[in-house]
Amino acid sequence: MEAYLDNSATTRVFPEVVELMVKTMSEDYGNPSSMHTKGVEAEQYIKEATKTFAQILKVQEKEIYYTSGGTESDNWALIGTALANRRTGNHIVVTAMEHPAVGAVADFLEKQGFAVTRLSVDEKGRIDPEKMKEAVREDTIVVSMMYVNNEIGAVQDIAALSRIIKEKNPHTYVHVDAIQAFGKYHIYPKRMGIDMLSVSSHKLHGPKGVGLLYIDEKVKIVPIIYGGGQQKGMRSGTDNVPGIAGFALAANLTYTDLDSKVERMYQLKQKLVDGLLALGDVHIHGMAVREGAPHIVSAAFVGVRSEVLLHTLEDRGIYVSAGSACSTHKRNASPTMQAIQAPRQLTESTVRFSLAETTTEEEIDYCLTVLGEVLPMLRRYTRR
Amino acid sequence: MEAYLDNSATTRVFPEVVELMVKTMSEDYGNPSSMHTKGVEAEQYIKEATKTFAQILKVQEKEIYYTSGGTESDNWALIGTALANRRTGNHIVVTAMEHPAVGAVADFLEKQGFAVTRLSVDEKGRIDPEKMKEAVREDTIVVSMMYVNNEIGAVQDIAALSRIIKEKNPHTYVHVDAIQAFGKYHIYPKRMGIDMLSVSSHKLHGPKGVGLLYIDEKVKIVPIIYGGGQQKGMRSGTDNVPGIAGFALAANLTYTDLDSKVERMYQLKQKLVDGLLALGDVHIHGMAVREGAPHIVSAAFVGVRSEVLLHTLEDRGIYVSAGSACSTHKRNASPTMQAIQAPRQLTESTVRFSLAETTTEEEIDYCLTVLGEVLPMLRRYTRR
Repeated sequence: MEAYLDNSATTRVFPEVVELMVKTMSEDYGNPSSMHTKGVEAEQYIKEATKTFAQILKVQEKEIYYTSGGTESDNWALIGTALANRRTGNHIVVTAMEHPAVGAVADFLEKQGFAVTRLSVDEKGRIDPEKMKEAVREDTIVVSMMYVNNEIGAVQDIAALSRIIKEKNPHTYVHVDAIQAFGKYHIYPKRMGIDMLSVSSHKLHGPKGVGLLYIDEKVKIVPIIYGGGQQKGMRSGTDNVPGIAGFALAANLTYTDLDSKVERMYQLKQKLVDGLLALGDVHIHGMAVREGAPHIVSAAFVGVRSEVLLHTLEDRGIYVSAGSACSTHKRNASPTMQAIQAPRQLTESTVRFSLAETTTEEEIDYCLTVLGEVLPMLRRYTRR
Repeated sequence: MEAYLDNSATTRVFPEVVELMVKTMSEDYGNPSSMHTKGVEAEQYIKEATKTFAQILKVQEKEIYYTSGGTESDNWALIGTALANRRTGNHIVVTAMEHPAVGAVADFLEKQGFAVTRLSVDEKGRIDPEKMKEAVREDTIVVSMMYVNNEIGAVQDIAALSRIIKEKNPHTYVHVDAIQAFGKYHIYPKRMGIDMLSVSSHKLHGPKGVGLLYIDEKVKIVPIIYGGGQQKGMRSGTDNVPGIAGFALAANLTYTDLDSKVERMYQLKQKLVDGLLALGDVHIHGMAVREGAPHIVSAAFVGVRSEVLLHTLEDRGIYVSAGSACSTHKRNASPTMQAIQAPRQLTESTVRFSLAETTTEEEIDYCLTVLGEVLPMLRRYTRR
C-alpha cells in the first residue's frame, strides 16, 4: 500500500486538469498575444481562468495577475511595493515564521536599505495583535504574513490583524501568503482587508510553475519582470496558457463543495492526531486540531531523528516531510521551528504529515499501523 | 487547409513532450526538494534535463538555471549582473532592436541610475562592430544582444562581436538573447564568448512557462527571485518538473538531425521569398535568405495594411503575425522596425511569416496561392 502524506510539498495533478493541459498544448496552442484566431482562442482560456479566480476570491478580474508560482508572487508583492513606495516609506514587517519566499526577500530588501521588522510569534505560531500594533509605523509600506504556516499549519486571524494594521497606518499594505491556505479556506480579500494575496497552483492539484498574485486596484506597485507588456504591462512574458487554464480548473474543482471536503480533512486529521498521541512520546506542534489548518500535522517523535523516520516510512510506501520540502537541503532548524522556539530535541525529530482532499482513511490507518510497528524498533536504536 | 506560419510567436508542443508531461503530472509528480523517493524521482528529471542542455550547449551542468521563460531569463541576466556589479560599473549596452524583454529592462535599469547605451543597427538589422567598440566603456557591466531578431530574422556574428567587446573591456559580460536562435543554430557559449544565454521552451515545441539562463561560472550575478533556495539559491521556487522535462525533450528532439532540418527550412524559406517577390510590390526586410535565420520572413505588402492582410489570411486558415506577437497590442511601430528605419509605408504593411521544422511545402504553396488571390482584391480597396 502507498500513502502520500506530503501534499503540502506538492500534489498529484487532477486528471481533468491534465486533460485540459494536453488540449491547450496540442490543439489550442496559440500565443494569446497573437491577433489571429489561434491567439484569440488561447486568450479565451486566460479570460475564463481569470473569471474563475475573481469569483472564488470575490474580487475584480483586473486584480488577478499570473506568475510562475507562489515564490514569484511573494517576491513581487514585497519588492514591487517596496520599490514603488520608497518615497513615502522605508519599512516592512514580516513575521519570524514566514516561508523563505517572504523571509529571504525581506533580507534582500534590508540589503537594499529598507528597514525590516521580524515579528515574533508564540509557541503555537500565533501573531500577537499587540506586537503587530507596535510594529507598524508611519513609514511601513507593507506587512506580509502567512495565512496558514506551511510547517505546522498555524492559522492567523488575518481580518483582525489587518484591521489593527490599517488602524495604525491606513497606508500600509497587507500582503498575505495564502499558498497553504488557498483551496482550504474561503478567502475574500475585500472583506478581510487583504491588499495582495499569493497563491500557488501545485499545492491544489494544479500544475507546477504557475501561481497568481491578487493585487487590489488601489495598490501602488511596480513589476519585477519587464518585457512585452503582457498582463497590462505588470508581468511580461508569454502567458502560460496550459498552466493558467489548468490552475483555474484545479481551483474550480477544489472549491466545489469545499466545506464538506474540509470537514472530511479535519476528521482525518483528528484521527491522525489521536493515533499519533496514542503512540506515546509524540508532541504535536502548533494549534489544536480544529484551530489549525485542516491538512497539516507536525509531530515530533521524541528519540527518533526525522530523517531516519522519513526513510523508514518511505520503505513502507509512506511519504512525509522532515520540515518543509522547501528547506530540506538545509541543515539548520527551519524558520518556523526557530520562531515557535521548539527545543532542539523536538525539532530534530519532527515530521510533517500533509493531507489533501484525495487522502483516504485507509492511508491514515496504514500510516498509523506502520508507525506503531516501526517506532519501538527505531527508539531502541537511539543513543540516549 | 491550414497553414500555421506563426511559429516565432509560439509552437505546437511535440506529442512526445506532451506525453512526458502527462507522466510527470500524473505519476512522477513529486517535489524535487522532498527527501523521499518521490522527490528523488522528480529530481532525476531535472538532472536529466540539465545533462541534455549541457551537452547541446557544451557547457557545465552547473551553469544551467531554469526560469519561467525567455523574458525572466533576459530580466535576470541584466538586472542580476547590474545589481551584483554596481561597485565596478554603472553602464550597460543593448541594441536598439532588442526584444522588449531586454529593451524594457534597460529602461528600468536606467531609472535605477544605470547609464544605458542603445546601439543603432543598419537597415538590414546588423550591428556595426565599430560602433560596438565605441559603445563599450571601462564601466560597462554587460552588453546584451539578440542572436536572431524576432521580427526580421537578422542574425549577428556573436563570436566576432564578443571578441570586440572583450578586447575593449575583458570584464564586460556578454549576454545573448537566443530565444529565436536556439533550436536553429549550434550555439556554443564557451567558444563564442557568451557569458549568459537566454532560451525559451515554447519556441521549439516545448511547453510555455519555462526557459533557461546559461550563466558562465565566472559571472558575478545575484538572483532576482528569492526564497527556498532551489537551484543553488540562485532561482527559488518549486522546480517546474513537467515543464523542465518537457523543455529538455523538445530541445533534444529539435537538435537531433538539426542541420538537415535547417537546410529544409532554408529551402522552404527560399520558396516563400521567391513566391512573395513574384507577387509584385513586396519588400522583404532584413538580410538575404541564407544570411538571415532559416525560419523568419518579414515582408511588406505595399498598399495593404498588415491587420487587414492578417485577418484575410486567417479566414483562409493561414496564421501569420503583424509585427511580433509580443507587441501586437501596441499601436507604435515595433522597436525593430524603428531600428532599421523602415519607412512608415512599409511598417504598416508588414507581416511576419515564421516556419518550424514541422512546416510543410504544402503550407508554403497554399499560402502563396491564397496571397496571389487576395492581394489584388485588397489593393483595389486601399486608399491611395
